[in-house]
Parts: sequence; structure tokens; C-alpha cells
Amino acid sequence: MRIGVLTAGGDCPGLNAVIRSVVHRAMTGHGDEVIGFEDGFKGLLDGHYRPLDLDSVSGILARGGTILGSARLERGRLREAAESADELGRKYGIDALIPIGGEGTLTAARMLSDAGMPVVGVPKTIDNDISSTDRTFGFDTAVMVATEAIDRLKTTAESHQRVMVVEVMGRHAGWIALESGMAGGAHGICLPERPFEVDSIVKMVEERFARGKKFAVICVAEGAHPAEGSMHYAKGEIDQFGHERFEGIGNRLAGELERRLGKEARPVILGHVQRGGTPTAYDRVLATRFGWHAVEAVHNGDFGRMTALHGTRVAMVPLAEAVTRLKTVPENRMFEAESVF
Amino acid sequence: MRIGVLTAGGDCPGLNAVIRSVVHRAMTGHGDEVIGFEDGFKGLLDGHYRPLDLDSVSGILARGGTILGSARLERGRLREAAESADELGRKYGIDALIPIGGEGTLTAARMLSDAGMPVVGVPKTIDNDISSTDRTFGFDTAVMVATEAIDRLKTTAESHQRVMVVEVMGRHAGWIALESGMAGGAHGICLPERPFEVDSIVKMVEERFARGKKFAVICVAEGAHPAEGSMHYAKGEIDQFGHERFEGIGNRLAGELERRLGKEARPVILGHVQRGGTPTAYDRVLATRFGWHAVEAVHNGDFGRMTALHGTRVAMVPLAEAVTRLKTVPENRMFEAESVF
Amino acid sequence: MRIGVLTAGGDCPGLNAVIRSVVHRAMTGHGDEVIGFEDGFKGLLDGHYRPLDLDSVSGILARGGTILGSARLERGRLREAAESADELGRKYGIDALIPIGGEGTLTAARMLSDAGMPVVGVPKTIDNDISSTDRTFGFDTAVMVATEAIDRLKTTAESHQRVMVVEVMGRHAGWIALESGMAGGAHGICLPERPFEVDSIVKMVEERFARGKKFAVICVAEGAHPAEGSMHYAKGEIDQFGHERFEGIGNRLAGELERRLGKEARPVILGHVQRGGTPTAYDRVLATRFGWHAVEAVHNGDFGRMTALHGTRVAMVPLAEAVTRLKTVPENRMFEAESVF
Amino acid sequence: MRIGVLTAGGDCPGLNAVIRSVVHRAMTGHGDEVIGFEDGFKGLLDGHYRPLDLDSVSGILARGGTILGSARLERGRLREAAESADELGRKYGIDALIPIGGEGTLTAARMLSDAGMPVVGVPKTIDNDISSTDRTFGFDTAVMVATEAIDRLKTTAESHQRVMVVEVMGRHAGWIALESGMAGGAHGICLPERPFEVDSIVKMVEERFARGKKFAVICVAEGAHPAEGSMHYAKGEIDQFGHERFEGIGNRLAGELERRLGKEARPVILGHVQRGGTPTAYDRVLATRFGWHAVEAVHNGDFGRMTALHGTRVAMVPLAEAVTRLKTVPENRMFEAESVF
Repeated sequence: MRIGVLTAGGDCPGLNAVIRSVVHRAMTGHGDEVIGFEDGFKGLLDGHYRPLDLDSVSGILARGGTILGSARLERGRLREAAESADELGRKYGIDALIPIGGEGTLTAARMLSDAGMPVVGVPKTIDNDISSTDRTFGFDTAVMVATEAIDRLKTTAESHQRVMVVEVMGRHAGWIALESGMAGGAHGICLPERPFEVDSIVKMVEERFARGKKFAVICVAEGAHPAEGSMHYAKGEIDQFGHERFEGIGNRLAGELERRLGKEARPVILGHVQRGGTPTAYDRVLATRFGWHAVEAVHNGDFGRMTALHGTRVAMVPLAEAVTRLKTVPENRMFEAESVF
Repeated sequence: MRIGVLTAGGDCPGLNAVIRSVVHRAMTGHGDEVIGFEDGFKGLLDGHYRPLDLDSVSGILARGGTILGSARLERGRLREAAESADELGRKYGIDALIPIGGEGTLTAARMLSDAGMPVVGVPKTIDNDISSTDRTFGFDTAVMVATEAIDRLKTTAESHQRVMVVEVMGRHAGWIALESGMAGGAHGICLPERPFEVDSIVKMVEERFARGKKFAVICVAEGAHPAEGSMHYAKGEIDQFGHERFEGIGNRLAGELERRLGKEARPVILGHVQRGGTPTAYDRVLATRFGWHAVEAVHNGDFGRMTALHGTRVAMVPLAEAVTRLKTVPENRMFEAESVF
Repeated sequence: MRIGVLTAGGDCPGLNAVIRSVVHRAMTGHGDEVIGFEDGFKGLLDGHYRPLDLDSVSGILARGGTILGSARLERGRLREAAESADELGRKYGIDALIPIGGEGTLTAARMLSDAGMPVVGVPKTIDNDISSTDRTFGFDTAVMVATEAIDRLKTTAESHQRVMVVEVMGRHAGWIALESGMAGGAHGICLPERPFEVDSIVKMVEERFARGKKFAVICVAEGAHPAEGSMHYAKGEIDQFGHERFEGIGNRLAGELERRLGKEARPVILGHVQRGGTPTAYDRVLATRFGWHAVEAVHNGDFGRMTALHGTRVAMVPLAEAVTRLKTVPENRMFEAESVF
Repeated sequence: MRIGVLTAGGDCPGLNAVIRSVVHRAMTGHGDEVIGFEDGFKGLLDGHYRPLDLDSVSGILARGGTILGSARLERGRLREAAESADELGRKYGIDALIPIGGEGTLTAARMLSDAGMPVVGVPKTIDNDISSTDRTFGFDTAVMVATEAIDRLKTTAESHQRVMVVEVMGRHAGWIALESGMAGGAHGICLPERPFEVDSIVKMVEERFARGKKFAVICVAEGAHPAEGSMHYAKGEIDQFGHERFEGIGNRLAGELERRLGKEARPVILGHVQRGGTPTAYDRVLATRFGWHAVEAVHNGDFGRMTALHGTRVAMVPLAEAVTRLKTVPENRMFEAESVF
């Protein structure tokens, strides 16, 4: 068989581990040929690809980024791809396509699949917000990076009797904030899933200072937002639903807390360091298993599906199921986290 | 309520995170009192314990080891404990005991539970070999440490055209070898679950050298053993089942490979670094959740059970179920790993 | 003897290692008593201090922050301290004071010393900008954190054909930018010591893209500023010398580059993670040696001086010499760095 | 000009950084050509080399090992090389050779230089035992790896009231043991430079246990040896000087301590993880500077010398001076270290 593989969407530690695993399993396990499209779906449409063999994927397991590159594609061109799915398959002589990507990519994968292309998806998101899978690779690395940062910030906060506000990634789902906040022992966690009350943060910090713990670390997802009227000083934009939204919530919250508490409050915006670089062992294993199972699915004719972690097992789930809704942090996980502040 | 907590068995990253979580949840969530027995069951029998409050557990989340200490207890004294389970509960005025430990500890916990003590166990093992739970805390840290070592060794192996044999922990189950071998991109993995053929390792290395990859890294669990007659030079002990067993399999295998291959082969025995020190973010989160759920189980009267990870959920499973058999690496996981060598 | 110790100024990895070393050397080497003033000079003036013994410093070697706390003191109160230096010494019955801190602290130390207090300083700055010493502890840790971040960002930059602008600490001296930029293999480094030309950065990036290296990482010290008229889009404040200065140079430069290059350019502001948390081995050793030699200096009556690293040797240099001028990055070090972009 | 470069001797983090720096500086700074000989002096004698350009050294700065390979060469063949030094230079058309290596390599470099070849050496040793330079690259990484291991082992030692003996590299000089022991807060350090008394270690551990610190970590250089008659149980080999020497001193010492103390004592042999893998930021900077200055020396005709760190400056020192004697740990550094146990 001849299998095409591509990576699309934002950077995510573990992409190279999937590519390597696909090539190894396909070539040494099944005698397949593998080609890699460059810069995501763009390479598929524009005919930019290269053959991949064991040498091309040598030494990439622990490397961040993606050797195939990744780029955004306009919606219009994706529809174009879907319309010519059949033809594209013939053009490259591929029997199957393995796109590795996040929600957008998997939606595109589904379109191609519906249009007749034999597709097996591999989900990827550092945000961990794809349904139907317990976890996605990249998430563990992002949490590790954020946790190490919180570990470092705590000692500064403590030495200077200061409040630190750490903004981590997570626009729509707060998994990174939840788990790095728990792992780092943050004293408050703000998630996109539930508007936070500035008053309760202020109260928590004041209680800590009162009992001699003269510092606090608050972990905030970039998509978190305060409850209506909860910010007194900072002003946000009013969005289409009439809600007040804050760009750069970390900076805003730190400013607000400093004025309300009369104590130093400093923001730290972690940014892109969370999504690049060498993956954790956990992510390398998960990515490798996903690549392996994607190739098996191709050989089982198990198309229109994506790999998913269910407990300790890698399962295949319908793409349709995966992309219908975001996996957000449930109420009980927030409750657990709050109990150990 | 008044809850007793103890840690028993070998060191494991995340023990302190469980203790901290138990204290936080019990005190701030339920207004309980918590006491900690020192040096495992020994403290319970000998009356060595101390009250634990928020201050006692401040700053321990990221610290390795256990603030309560841990020690082995002779089987005889455990039976003694079981016989006086009732009395012990009265003596300390505790309404429940939360023992945190591995297979031995959980077996002891079960004895105490059968003898009438209200017990909720928390499983702990860097080996990941406890049944009924997807994972145990400490394992992720051990795999991370082993993977970082393999990452480092690979460059030396490559620069010197050398074979490196890395011995990792895992006496009866090969999970650490499996996952660190996969994550580190080892070219061979030897597990206790299946005798390995030295011939196939020799062949694999020779094939690598033949295609210009002039180095190899083999990851060996300490409990791995060669197939009968598979070692030509090294000699092992004959065990009770008439099988040849090798103490220090890493050293033996390196010596054997060096003679068979006529190339330098060096052993590295990772040892105790795998079980100490600061836990990964993953382990801190899992340990924290286990502690939280153990306290909830106490309040739900859910005794004779232990916390377990099922997918993304923490469940309570009967102690009886957990300790009947070891969770070893199944055939399909070995197969996956071998395919990406 | 009775020795007082205090930490003042910003957080810096290694402060605890100095305190521990002072206590160990003074107590076990000389049979001294040690007291620690809380929150820097404030504790000295307000009488907040506590005795330090081996137990108080147990386990702090690898911990970030300072167990003694640190706080800013208004200039006025410092003068007050200097005026009553004699009296303060008598009040606490101390035979010597060891203040650990940066330029401000050492200046204060010098005032106290001139006023008659027996003072031995220990220099501290993550910025490495104190004269008369080859290096200060904390710097190596800051460079390590910044380098790890650049390592991570590079893979994202490469996968997305993007320019990344990393802003690191260094208001007046660019040592962190210089060394983390070199260690991380940045393609451009901007230091406070020399205005940078945006044009040359633009040219460098374009040349990289032209030869197929479709990404770039620029490492910018927070105190770096563009040559007059060099920024076309971003506008800065005009300072007292009539120069245009840019707050948040990382953000500004990324915005400018994005418009000039027509390519994505993203800023990452590392911030406080550079100054907290566990020190590197290098910094622990240097801090320990500084503490040791400070105690020896006290016993040698070598007052009005501070510890300094000269090659491999710890020497004592006059405080006067250390605080007269900042140690900035010399031209030849910039030249070295530029040659390996 | 045409410059040859080679790496010889054991693996050492930073080798690739030197190679990259040589290529960058030579090509972009001077318009030189660079060729790399494979597997050390072997490549020079056997004619195995390849041209190096910016692409060949792209992405290697942070990678451990050496892209040029390294191999031992028999003394005889080296003499052969020296005899034909002139001819070799002509054969490859090189105007200068930059060998990067340890004591053996630099001795060979000196022979070639004496025989008329234009040679500029770059010293390399994780052991830090080369004279005339404050530090060598690779050492900082080795100390970091060893320190992280000690950090991890301490928590296990403490939880289990155990003695841990960590054996680190250093056959003739104890720098790694000294600095990782200090940085890790070991309670005893044994160096090759001075026979250690088992009695004093036993006494130190007993005193610690007596004052409630029921654990200890001893850091032992592989080349350390006990004072005559100091080991009661373990037996060593009698060497040519009539001294008792112990292979595997870590294992021996742990066994001895266990019997003498009646407490668990466990050895951990760090081995090759200390010399492979990604270099620290410190080592990357030093290696890069050494490469840069080696090229400058070539252009200055400064032959028969090697790069050296003197304080903050890179200087050129005669090869003759560098290889005459080993730089061992001086008495005062041991004394400093012992004072903070």
C-alpha cells in the first residue's frame, strides 16, 4: 500500500513521534510505501510531498515540531480539496491518508472521508479538548512546562510576599490550567468553563496572608473570563453575546488584584514555550502508539475514524463523533482541584 | 472524623502529594482530624504518630520521598496487627485508616479490613504492576528518568559506535522498560514477561551496523531473563523451577553482547534514581486525585477498597481484586513496541 | 562571634545556598552564632530577626527564593541605618553583618561599612552585571531557563515558518540575552549595550528564508532599544536624554518585524520564571563558596569587602570597587556571538 | 584557508557546539573551507573526511555526541601520523588542523605540531582535569547530571533511613565528585586526590543519625580509594605501588558501610549518562567560544597552542603546558566542601 501522511494546525510535541511510528510500522510491518505532504493540507492540494523512509525519520522521536511543516489553510481551499478527494487520491496513488491534527484538521479529515477518501485521523492538541479520547499527546508536555514554571514562580512569590498570576494556554478548555495548577499547587485556578469571581480570589489571598502564608499563585487559562461585574478596575470588550471579555486576562487580573489587594501582583504569560520542544516520555509513547494504530486501521480498512485513548487501550472512534463538541473540564474535576488549594 | 494515614513499602514519587491531598480534603472539605503514622505499619503497631495539619503538609507537593517515613514490617507483626485491628482503631480513636503502598501494603490493608478496620487503600508502585487501575503514580516519573537517561546514552553510543545496555527497574513486570524503551527509541526491549533471545538482539544489532546505523541501545528490565541456552558466555543461577536466572542482567547481557558482536557494549544500571525525587506533573495530579477520593470514600463508608484510575475517572475497587494478581505487560503492547524499533 | 545575615533585593536562585553555607561554616567551623534578619534591611532596622542553626538551613540548598525574605527599603531609611550603624551592631550584639544582594544592597552595605559596621558583602544578581567578579550566582540558572525556552521555541518557529522574539531579563546589561542567545542558537541578539538596527534583523531573516531556513529566533534583553529611527511602525517614549525608549521591547519588535517581513512574528516574554526556583549545580557551588569565604573574611577582619570569583578562586574585593560601575557586555563578546548566528 | 577539524577520545557534551562554531566562524567570518575527519585521528590517517558547511552543522548545537565520530587510536599509528605530518597536511590541502579532545588527543596534537603541522587544539574533558584552563566544556553538564541524581537519591535515603553511595566519574581527578557533592549537598565526598578514611564516614553517619538526621548520601569519584587498612570487609587489588585499589569503589564502599553501620547502604553507579546528551547552556557557550577562538588562532598563525578559559577571557596557551600534568582538586577546595557537609 501507499500511505500519505500530513500534519496540520498548531505545533504540538509528539507530531514527529507519530510520523516516525507511521513510517516504521507501515514499512517494516507491512512493506508499505509512505509519502509525507508538506505544510499540511496545502501540500496535498499543491502537490508538495516527499517520500519518507526509515532514514527520513531517524532521530526525530524526541524532537519537537514537525519535519513535514504545518500551515493554515483557508476554508475555501479545503472545500476544494473535499470536492476533488477522489482525484487527489488517484493523483498521488495513495491508498490512504493519515492527517494528524486538531479539531479543524479532523473536521477537514471528515470532509475528505465523506467525499470518499480513505482517511484515518490522529488527534493532536496540547489543549486536550478533543472528545472521544481520554488524552491527546502534547498535553502532558504542555502541563509539564507550565508546572515547572509555577514551581519556579512560587519561590519568588514567597520571598517577596507577592501574588503571581500565571497565564497558560487554553482558549476554550481549561485542561492545562487545571492540571498544571493542581500539579504546581496553585492557590487559585481560573478556567474558560466557568466565569471566575475576583472577589473570591481576593478573599482567598487575604486569608492566606492572615494565616502567615504571605504569597499566592493563581493559574489562569488564556480563555478564562471574570464573572460579569467582577472586575472593578480593568475593562474588557463586550462580545457578540453581550459578555465582557478580556484580552490578555493574565495581565488584567494581575493589575486588578494589585489594586484590590494593595500588594504586588505580577503576571507571567507562558505563551509558546508550552507547545514546542521535546515531548515528555508520556507523549512520545502515546504518539507512537497512535501512529502504530493508525497504520493498522488503514490495513483493516477502518476508515473515517481516528485513534483514541480509552483507558490503557488505543481504540478507533468515528471522526464524526470526535469533532461534534469540545471536551471541556467537567464540574467535578474543578471541585477536586479547588479542594486542595 | 479522625483519619489515620501511613505510607509503606519502597520510595515512590507522589507519596507526599497523596498525604497533602488527604489532609487538605479531610480538614478543609470535611472538618476532619488527620494523624500520620510513622514508618508505615510499624508506627501503627508501636504507637508512633503525629497530628497532621495544613502547615505540616505545606510545600511537600513537589517533594520526593514521604514525610511519614516508610519501613518494612515482618509478616508476623502484620498478622499481629490484623488480630488487634479493632483494638488499634480504638487505641488511636481513628474512624478510618488510609494506607498508601504497593502490593504488600495493600495485602496488609486487606487483612486489616477483613479483621474489621475501616480501611481505604491508595495504590503506589513505580512498577505500574497493580491490577484494577490503569496507572499508579510514581510510574510516570520513573519512566521519565529512564527516558532522559536513554536520550543521553544514545549520543554516546552513536559517537562511539557502541552498544549500550540500560537496566531499568521492574522485577516482575516490565512496564518501565516498555515505556522508557519506546519513549527513548531503544532498539531492543527485554521484559520479565517473556524470555528474550540473545540471538535476535545480536541479529538486530548486526543489521543496524550493516545499514550504517553503527550503534544500538537495549533497554532491559532488571527482572528480564534470557531464553534457556540463549546466553553462551554468561552463566546464571538455576532457580527453584530449574530455570537459569541472572542477577544483574544488564551487566551480563552487555558482556555477552560484547563477546558475540566483537563490538564495545557497555551496561548502565539506573538504580534508585528512578524512584526518588520530585514527581512529574502527571504523578502529582494522579496522587492528588487519589488522596482526594480516598477521603471521599471514607466519608461514603466505602471501605475495603482502594482508589483506581479508570480512563479519566477515579474509581473505587475492592482491595481483594487489586492484590490477587500482578498486572504484567500484555503481548500486544510488546508487539507495538517491537514494531517501531 | 555572632554574625548577622540578610538577603535584600530581587529574588535570585542560590540565596538559600549562601545562607546555609554561612551557617554551616560559622557554626561548625568556628563555633559562631548566626542570626538572620527578615526581609532585608527592614529586619535590621525594625528588629525582626531569628537565630539560625543547622536545622533551620536543612534542606534549603536546592530551594529557590530566600528563607529570610527580602523587601525593598526606602533610601531614607537606609540613611537612618547608616547613621545608627554602631548602635545597631550593639543592639543585636553582632560582630559582623553579611548582607547578600545586588548593586543597591552592596551600596547600602558600603554605607554601613563606612559608618563603622563590620560588613562583608556577598554579591547577587541574575543579571551578572556586578563589577569585580567574573560571575554572580543566579545568572547561570537564569541563562539555563532562558535557553530551555529558546530550545522549545525553535521547533515551533521552524514548523510554522515563523519569527519568534524572546524577551529575557537584563535592564542595563545584556548578559542573559548574550549567553542564552548563544546557547540557544538564536539568530539575532539585542542588548542594552548597543542600539540595534531593525533593518539588519530584517535582512538577516530574509536571507535565512532565501536559503531555505524558513524561521528565526531573536533574543532580546528587556533593556535593549532600537537605533534612532530604526522602528518604522512602533512608537516609543522619548526619555530624558531625548532617546526613544520602548517599554515591552519584545512585543514591539515582534509587531514591527511582522509588518516589515510580512511573516508571522510572535513575542514570548519570559519574565519571572528566570529568577525563581531551584538553582543549577553551578550556582549552588558558587553560592556555597561565597558563603564560606564570607565567614572566613569575617574571621580575618576583612571588612568593607565582598566575595568575588576570579577565575577559579574566590577573592575579596573592596565594596567601593564593586559598586562604582555596572559590568556590561564588552564589544568583543558581542562580536563573538554575532559570528555564530 | 582550508581547515581540518576532528574529535577524539571519549564522548563529551559540547563537541558538536565546537564543530558548529568552527564552521560558522571560518566560513562566514573568513571565507574559509572546512573539512571534518571521521572517527578522530583514524580519519586523518585513513583519509576519511567530508566537507562541512553551514547546512552540515545546522541543528547540532544542542545535540550530544559528535557528528564526526570518535575512536581510539593505537599509540603506534599516532607516531606514524606524526612522522608524516607534513605529508598529511599536503594530502588534504589543509592549512591548519583543529583537533578537539582530552589529554591523549592534546598530546597527539602536540606531537603533530612538533612535527610541523599547524595545529590549534581545543581541550575537552568532562573530568575538568586539563591544566592551564579554568574549566573545560562537558564538565558542567556532567556535574548537572550527577547533581540531579543526588537530588533524587536524597529523598529515597531520607524516607528509608538509608545510606546512599553515589559513584560519579573521575578516575584521576575528583572535580565531578567535588562539585556535584557540594551542589547536591552530599554528606561525604571521596576523591582520588586523597585516600578516604572509612572510619570518618562511619562516624559522620552515626553522628547524623544521633541528631535525628537518619540518612546520608556519600558522593564517590570512581578513582577514589580508601586509606590503607581503612576497609575492614572489602578486599581490593594490590597495585604496582603496593597500594590496595578497589574496582567499583561505589559497590565496595556501600557494602563496607552496611556491615559497619548495621544500616542499609545502597550504591548507585551513574556511569555513562554523565557524558552524553544535550549540553548545559554553560557548556554550549564555552564550546562555542572555544571554536571561535580556535579559528582566530589559525588566522593569527598562533599554532601549537590550545584555547583556554582564564576568568572570563578565552586565551591561547601552549599545548606543551597543558599536557604536562593533570589538574587535580587542590586541598583548599576539599576543605571548603567538607565544611558544609
